[in-house]
Order: sequence, then C-alpha cells, then structure tokens
Amino acid sequence: MAQRLKTVLNEIAADLSDSHDWGKVADYIPELAAVPKEQFAIAVITKDGQCHSAGSAQVRFSAQSITKVFTLAIALGRSGDQLWQRVDREPSGDAFNSIVQLEQENGHPRNPFVNAGAIVTTDEVLAGRAPKDALAEILGFIRTAAEDDDIHINKSVAKSETEHGHRNFALAHFLASCGNLKNPPDMTLGTYFHHCAIELTVTQLAKAGRFLIGPGVGPKMVSPERVRRLNALMMTCGHYDGSGDFAYRVGLPAKSGVGGGILAIVPGQASIAVWSPGLDQNGNSKLGTEAMQRLAHAMNWSVF
Amino acid sequence: MAQRLKTVLNEIAADLSDSHDWGKVADYIPELAAVPKEQFAIAVITKDGQCHSAGSAQVRFSAQSITKVFTLAIALGRSGDQLWQRVDREPSGDAFNSIVQLEQENGHPRNPFVNAGAIVTTDEVLAGRAPKDALAEILGFIRTAAEDDDIHINKSVAKSETEHGHRNFALAHFLASCGNLKNPPDMTLGTYFHHCAIELTVTQLAKAGRFLIGPGVGPKMVSPERVRRLNALMMTCGHYDGSGDFAYRVGLPAKSGVGGGILAIVPGQASIAVWSPGLDQNGNSKLGTEAMQRLAHAMNWSVF
Amino acid sequence: MAQRLKTVLNEIAADLSDSHDWGKVADYIPELAAVPKEQFAIAVITKDGQCHSAGSAQVRFSAQSITKVFTLAIALGRSGDQLWQRVDREPSGDAFNSIVQLEQENGHPRNPFVNAGAIVTTDEVLAGRAPKDALAEILGFIRTAAEDDDIHINKSVAKSETEHGHRNFALAHFLASCGNLKNPPDMTLGTYFHHCAIELTVTQLAKAGRFLIGPGVGPKMVSPERVRRLNALMMTCGHYDGSGDFAYRVGLPAKSGVGGGILAIVPGQASIAVWSPGLDQNGNSKLGTEAMQRLAHAMNWSVF
Amino acid sequence: MAQRLKTVLNEIAADLSDSHDWGKVADYIPELAAVPKEQFAIAVITKDGQCHSAGSAQVRFSAQSITKVFTLAIALGRSGDQLWQRVDREPSGDAFNSIVQLEQENGHPRNPFVNAGAIVTTDEVLAGRAPKDALAEILGFIRTAAEDDDIHINKSVAKSETEHGHRNFALAHFLASCGNLKNPPDMTLGTYFHHCAIELTVTQLAKAGRFLIGPGVGPKMVSPERVRRLNALMMTCGHYDGSGDFAYRVGLPAKSGVGGGILAIVPGQASIAVWSPGLDQNGNSKLGTEAMQRLAHAMNWSVF
Repeated sequence: MAQRLKTVLNEIAADLSDSHDWGKVADYIPELAAVPKEQFAIAVITKDGQCHSAGSAQVRFSAQSITKVFTLAIALGRSGDQLWQRVDREPSGDAFNSIVQLEQENGHPRNPFVNAGAIVTTDEVLAGRAPKDALAEILGFIRTAAEDDDIHINKSVAKSETEHGHRNFALAHFLASCGNLKNPPDMTLGTYFHHCAIELTVTQLAKAGRFLIGPGVGPKMVSPERVRRLNALMMTCGHYDGSGDFAYRVGLPAKSGVGGGILAIVPGQASIAVWSPGLDQNGNSKLGTEAMQRLAHAMNWSVF
Repeated sequence: MAQRLKTVLNEIAADLSDSHDWGKVADYIPELAAVPKEQFAIAVITKDGQCHSAGSAQVRFSAQSITKVFTLAIALGRSGDQLWQRVDREPSGDAFNSIVQLEQENGHPRNPFVNAGAIVTTDEVLAGRAPKDALAEILGFIRTAAEDDDIHINKSVAKSETEHGHRNFALAHFLASCGNLKNPPDMTLGTYFHHCAIELTVTQLAKAGRFLIGPGVGPKMVSPERVRRLNALMMTCGHYDGSGDFAYRVGLPAKSGVGGGILAIVPGQASIAVWSPGLDQNGNSKLGTEAMQRLAHAMNWSVF
Repeated sequence: MAQRLKTVLNEIAADLSDSHDWGKVADYIPELAAVPKEQFAIAVITKDGQCHSAGSAQVRFSAQSITKVFTLAIALGRSGDQLWQRVDREPSGDAFNSIVQLEQENGHPRNPFVNAGAIVTTDEVLAGRAPKDALAEILGFIRTAAEDDDIHINKSVAKSETEHGHRNFALAHFLASCGNLKNPPDMTLGTYFHHCAIELTVTQLAKAGRFLIGPGVGPKMVSPERVRRLNALMMTCGHYDGSGDFAYRVGLPAKSGVGGGILAIVPGQASIAVWSPGLDQNGNSKLGTEAMQRLAHAMNWSVF
Repeated sequence: MAQRLKTVLNEIAADLSDSHDWGKVADYIPELAAVPKEQFAIAVITKDGQCHSAGSAQVRFSAQSITKVFTLAIALGRSGDQLWQRVDREPSGDAFNSIVQLEQENGHPRNPFVNAGAIVTTDEVLAGRAPKDALAEILGFIRTAAEDDDIHINKSVAKSETEHGHRNFALAHFLASCGNLKNPPDMTLGTYFHHCAIELTVTQLAKAGRFLIGPGVGPKMVSPERVRRLNALMMTCGHYDGSGDFAYRVGLPAKSGVGGGILAIVPGQASIAVWSPGLDQNGNSKLGTEAMQRLAHAMNWSVF
C-alpha cells in the first residue's frame, strides 16, 4: 500500500498544481488575505506510523477551525457529556458564523464546529482560568498528539482576528445574553482567537490527528468511544454548510479551516492532512477537497 | 374641552389605581427591576399650551426607548434622507432586540426604533465626536423641546445597561461586522445607553413632545414635513411588535419605553405622556396602553 | 377646495403621463400581464359627496388585494373580535405571500392583508356556505358601499388565479395543516380568487371606500369604531412590506392591489382611488403611490 | 460471529421488552395512531447472507420515509447527477416537514430525505408517467432487492395520508410555485403517499437493504460508487433533525420512518432493520434507536 499511496499522492499534487481555479483566499484579516493561493500540500500517516507527503509539506499554515476538534476533545475530557447541556450536536443548515439559529434556539449552538459552538467549547476549556493557561493546555494537547513541540501560535494572526472579529464578538455577546457563557466575552474570545491562530504543516497536522484513527495508533489522547464520537461529529458537521457534500464526495470524517487546511480520518487506517489556501463558496479549501476526493477514491478509503 | 379632559384624566387615574394586574417591570437591570410597579401618571399638553395631569406626575422615570424619537429627529437634522441608506423604515415583525432580521438583511436594521436601528441612529448622531458631546446635543434637544433644563441622565442606569447589555453589544458588533457602524461599538453603545437613561416626569415628557403636534405649537425643533414623518414612524414602528395592536386600539402615533413610559401625539391637538412601570408581553406599559386607549376614546382623538 | 382639488388632480395626471418609468405589471397570470402599463387614473370623493377624477377614470381594473378590506369588514361584522383568534393584526416584515412567518407562528397569519390572513378572513366569511353565496355577500357589500350595481367579477381572471395560484394553495394547505381553515382549501381559495377578481373603475372604488371616511358619509356599512380600526390596519399593514414607506411618504391609511389600484382614506375628509398597473419592487403601484404622495402633500391630507 | 450476533439480538429484544417508555406512535393518521406501541422487532442480514432476527419479526409495519432511500436510488438511476439541480444534499437543521427553508432557498429542498426533497425525488421518478407505473417501478425495486414479492402497498394508509396530508400538499404546491415540480401536485403526491405506504417486516426490510452493504452482497441494484453516496446521505440526513445525534450514538448510515422502522447499514458487513412504533421527539423510533445503539456497540459496528 505504501508504494501505491506514494504514487497517488504525487499524482494528485502534480495534477492539482496545474489547476486553473485555485479558489479564493479568506480576506477578512490581512494575514490570511496575503497568503499566495497557488500552494498545495498533502500528508498521510498510516496506522503503522509511516508518513508520506507531497507538495509544500514543510510550509506552516493557519489551522483556524481545525483546532476546534482538539478543543472539543479537551472540553469533553474536562466536562464529559455535561458539555451537551450547552451545545447541541446536529448539523446546522446555516453558515458557520450565522447568528440566526442562535436566536431561534435561545443561545444553544447547533454543534461544536460552528463558530458559536466553538466559542462555547473554548469557554468550557477556559473554565475560569487565565487564557494563557487554557492556551497552554490546548497547545500542549496538539503538541503531544503530534509528538512535536515545534507548533506555535501566530500572535499577529490572533491580534488581527481580535481587531476584525466583530461577528465573533456578536456571537459571544449573544451567548452571554442567553446565559451560555461562563467567562467574560473578551477572555473567551481571546482564547478562541489564539487557538485558531495555531500554525502547523500538513505533516504536523496529520500526526496530530493520529489519535482519531483508533486504538493503538499514536499517543492515546482520549477513549476509543470518544474517538468514534469525535469522528461522527466531524462527519456530520465538520465542513459547515458543505458537510453533506463532503460526506457525499469523500465519505470521511473531516474538519476544515479557513486557512485552507483539512484534517480527515480514515478510521482504523490513516490520518490525512491537506492544505491549499483558496476556498470554495462554503469556506472550505477548494483544491484540498478535490485532493481528498481523489485520494479517498484511489485508496478506496470511504467509510461507506 | 379643558374641563372634559381634566375629568377624563382623573377618572382614568382613579380607575387604573384599582388594577389587579399591573404587568411586570423590566428586570434586565437592577435599577429598573427595583421600581415599584403600582405607579401611574399621565399628562396632556394641548396645542394652546395648557397642561393637565393626574397620578404621580412629579415622579421621574427612565425614558429608555422613548429617547429614540429625539435621537432620530437629530439624526435626520444632521444627515437628512441619507440616514435611510443605513436603516430602513418598515415595521419589523420581530422582537425589539432581534438579531435574526439583521442577519437576513445584511446589517440594515428594519427601522430606527428597534434596538439595532436606534444604535445606527445614535452612531449617526455621534459622528466621530466624543460621546459627551453627542449626549450634550441629545439632552439639549430634549431640554429645549420641553423648555425645562431640569432633565438629566441617570448614570447608574447607564452603567448598569453597559454591564448587562450583552444583547446590545451583540447587535452593535453585528452592525460593525456588516460595515454599518462608523464609530467603535463601545463608543456608540456608551452614547446609546446614556441617552436611554434620561429621566423625566410625564409632564416634562409631554412638553418635550409638543413639537410633534404640528406647526405653531411649542418650540420649533424640526420642519413640518419632518414632524409628519416622525409621527408616521411612531405609528407604524413605535411599539415594536405591538405597533399594529396599538394603532388598532388607540389610533395615535406613539413611542414606548421599557421604563414604562409612552409618548403619544394627537396631530394638531395634543401631546400625551403616560407612565406605569409594569409591562405587557411585548415590553410596552400595560396600564399606560390602557390609559391611552381610554383617553383617545373619550376625547375622540384617533387620527382615523 | 373643490377647485383646488380639480387643479391638483389634473396636474398630477398630466405630469405622470410623461413618466419614463411606469414600473412593471404583475405577470403571474396572463390576464394581468397583458394590461398595458402606461395607464393612469385617479378619483376623489369628498365628504360632501362630490366626485373629481382625472385620467382613465372609466377603465375597469382588477381590484385584487384591495377587496381584502371589504372582506375583512364583512368578517368582522359576522364574527367580531373572535376573528382575532385566527389572525393577528401586526405588520409582517415579510413579503405578502411568505409562508415562513406562518410556520414560525403555527399557522396564525400576521394580519388580514397578507395573503394567508386574507385566506383566513375569506374562510370566516365563507362559513360553510356555498362559495357563490359568500361571493354574493362580498360583491353585494361593495355594490352597496359604492351605490353602484355595475361591479362584477372577472371569471377568467379568477380561473387563471386558480390555475397559477400554487403559492396560495401552499398557504391554504398550510393553514389547514395547522387547523386554521374551517372549509376545504379548494372552496376557500375558490372564493378568495373570485373576490380578488372583482373589477371596477377608480370612481367606483373611491365611492366604495366612502364608508371609511367616517360617520355620515356615504351608506353606513359598519360602526364608527370599526371604521377607525379598519383604517388603522390599512395604515400599518395595507402595503405589505412597503407599509412603513407609504405611511412615511403619504401618511394615509390605504390598501393596494397587484392590479395597480390603491384605495386611500382621508379620515373625515375624502376617499381616494388611484390606478396605474405598473408595480414597484414591493408589488404596489409605482405611479399610484407617487400620485398619492403628491395629492396628500398638495391637499395637506396626511393624518399626521 | 453468528452466535455472538444471535445472543446480542436476543438480549436486546429481551431487555427492551421491559421498557417503561415506549415513546409515542405517530398520530396524524388513524392507521398509524392505532398501532399498539409495545412492539419490537429486529433483523440482521450479514454479508454472507445469513439472517438473524428477534422480536416480532413477522409483523408488517408501514415503511413510510424509509422508502425514500429506494426512491432516491431509482431517481439517481434515471437522472444521475442532474437530480442535484433540483434538490441539495445537505443536512437541514429544520424539522422534516419544514417549509421555512424551502422559501429561504427558493424551492430547492435541502436533501432528498426531508419531505420536500422526497417529493421532488418522487416527481423525478414519476416523470410524466401514470402514478401506477412509477409505483410499479418503486415496488419492483424493493421486491427485487429483497428477493421477495410478498411486499405490498397498504392502500388505506395511502388514502388516509392523502386526506390528512395538508402539510405535504403545502410543500408540493410551494415547490410547484417555484417551478420545481414537473408533474401536477396531486399526481406527485399520490405517488409519494403510496410508496410511503409500503408495508414489510424487519426481515424483508433488512433483505431489501443488502445492496447498500457493498459489492457482491445480495442482488446488484446500483453501482458501488452510488452505494457509497446513498450511505453518505443516510449518515448526514437520514434521521431528520436527529441525524447528528444518531451518528454520534450509533455511527452507522441509516434511515428512519414515522412507522417506527429504521434501516441501518454496516458497510461491508451487514444490513440491519429494526421496528418499534413509538417515536421520540424528532419522529424517530425510540426503542429502535436504542436497539441500534446497543447492537452497534456490542458488535463494534460503527464506521468511525
């Protein structure tokens, strides 16, 4: 399989580098808007620990919403099923930053991967601590999972998010007005913006995702039962309003970020990370999604 | 008419003082929650300048949303019809603090009397100045209109609004995220919370409303054309989601506030202010509305 | 005043006949789509019974939603305030044929002038009778009010509405699913489509509207109290999602129809009917609205 | 595995028969309301063709929405990806019979498993034919898949659906008003109501589901690629507004019906059918879901 995988990854990287339409980079903060869009990288770690990559696998990119997976794992570890008193686990049917649903459901976000839900999850992880302590836990979790301490927060990205994050401030204050925020909005959002600003390479991300492959692969971070549930949430909610389409086309649990990264899991088999900064209309990496579709098809990796 | 009016006002005040159901005082800030609800006052200024009142006409209450009328008058004076580029003038069909509509209409509030619209209006009045300068203009407008300088801002109410105003912070940040806020959210909201915290008596409020009766009554504050338009907006949007009901039952342009006050205008005839702090389910004064209905009926004062 | 009025009407008709933009005729049924849009007529009946008109005052047009006013008057006459158990009286904030609000409020339409509300009102008038009996009552009411028996239903318009009225069928079935329809959807809609297909001239319409001017003008059709309430509903809800704008610009209670007609009332003074088939983006007559604005301004006829 | 499976099924059936809360049977038509709720059946067909069952496996129940899976398979067979021009494939976030989303997205249903989407799918299968011909195709597909001709439509259920189906008529007419219905609403709905009224036992349903297990299991009905996609849609959208929860708790692609049945697929392993007529608040079988959760856990059958 290793040889086949290597060939497939190289073919995908080669084909996609000739793309005519690379999508559109996120432009709501200058740091993301400045990333050249014609970039692509992919890395796969198989259950036996082998790592294969193609493209710009050494370039760091902004993880953004992908960190919501790790934050959720930590929040569930701290609070267990009590977390579901504060956030639901249903696909949303609305855009990732929609506030409509939040009002209609009285401040109870639809799932932990829409922004409002991730703010609640972050709030649960913060739990009255100083933001730097919560951030140390989140960063520590990712470093341990990846077995790599060279993963960091880009502070200028975090600062820029704070300055341009009016929509997220609106969500946080709305949650607070519904009594669904335990810490002051500024503190929770500060923590949220900083963990979204974590930067890593596709290789680091694929390694950090190993614990979701299943028992016995990589460092044990959470229980096998919880691994399944994290994957279930990634499958139904991991691509915002494009989750159904991703499940249909790729058939793997995955989480995307507006930095252009996607982390996908082949249960029992592999952890895949892809990056290409141009996004489609749902805010998911355009070529990243295409690469995932091709890889899953070539390796027969759909869960279905 | 004066004698008839005096009799009617006394009857209304006497009857309502026996009410079994005084409604429910606003409880989102301690200052409003602490107001004893069994209070009632009414004042009428007729076009000839005579003032009649009944009940606790010397008690000051928090004007709250009623100040939106004066702020709108100032904003239209400063910006004219350009204001309508930022806010619409249609009834909302949603609650006064709804954010749903704001998302569906891309940050363009439905009218200047829902919270989001009044925040935009305040932002227009602020116009880059220090909040205290904008507040001086708003307070000055009301004092001039009432010909009474003994009208003030209750700073502890404004402070409390700031501390408990998460919903309004959500609205302001949402407006900012849509590019429909010119000043920083904190500054605009600070101004907004302070003008909502203006306190006055029903007599002072009725006097402040004289300029809306029509040409030649009280100090001239705005053009006759604008008087009509302010009244039109009060008629269609002045009672939030209960505007249709108020028009149906009372038939006068009016603006309510969660402090329990209502200002109503009988075009060409009179300015009426009523106060009773208990609210109905739409957030409008319960006994105040009843008093308006009885007064309009007894004096044959509907515009229809 | 009569001379002044005559002059004003002629000026308006002359000026508008030079319009560059006549709006866009309703095109959802062939009968309305075929009406040449460059037509205009206006008629005013003052309280003393004098009638003045200008433009094509002898041309019959499809009353459409304007008949909702008469149907509501009949329904209130039959059922009194019990009607408000089935329909609310608040402006909608949504389009005239929206089904969203109906679902969110469990089949209780916002007011009697949105389509869903008018279907309920028609259902109340139908009351288990044969549609032709209900239609005879509606047509009889209008003929009596206008003191003119030469007012008829255009059956090919009614038939065409039935064939193209999927949206209204959706509304009626939705109401039925919520238990808010007493008669079979087909029967209620048949009655609804037929009364909307009543045709009349502006002169006939202005005469039919006299009972809304107030006591002592034209045939007495309903109580003075009810006249006021009908006017209040026309003011807050008569122009669908453009009601606030009409109140702001014209300041009179009025009801529009997609046939291009508008009936407006100057309480205590006059009944006005205008017709021009081209519509604005809210589905209200473009030149009709302009004419109303000019007339109200010239005659100083705002209620505010 | 066979022995283990047998034991697990018997344990589940035994435990659930002692349930205190059997949920609430669908009551919108008399035929479903009359079904005694204290019933349970489960059947599993493994890839080697072995069939195991427990409980009332010989009792026929109304398939209801489960037939949407087969109708979708046929529609995709007839029209391929062109079907996605008429219906989307995203989870809805709204109730199964919601019309709100349909208006907000201009008559384009969110997925083929909400009612509006299944009406469109049925409309595509109907394709101008007589309803009986389309029904023959649908019934034929299910009989072939199950290798069992003793599967029938319950006509009194279909008739009752027609009489009480105002909400579905509303959806169909709304689709028609948006131009997204090719056949007359009555014909499409007639076909829809009849295929929903197909009755079968859990054993028959599990057999009918074998083609979704993957290549080489049971009769070949659709391509392997399409099998995966049908499973993906069942995973993200198969339980209406409870799809996320089912994925989280069970981790298998599945489709429920208000008759109390659920069909779930273990890709590459097995087809599972369960039935218990009492529903939870989302309209999915209460004990059926619990049985699926226990079975998947005991057999280690989650896809994640």
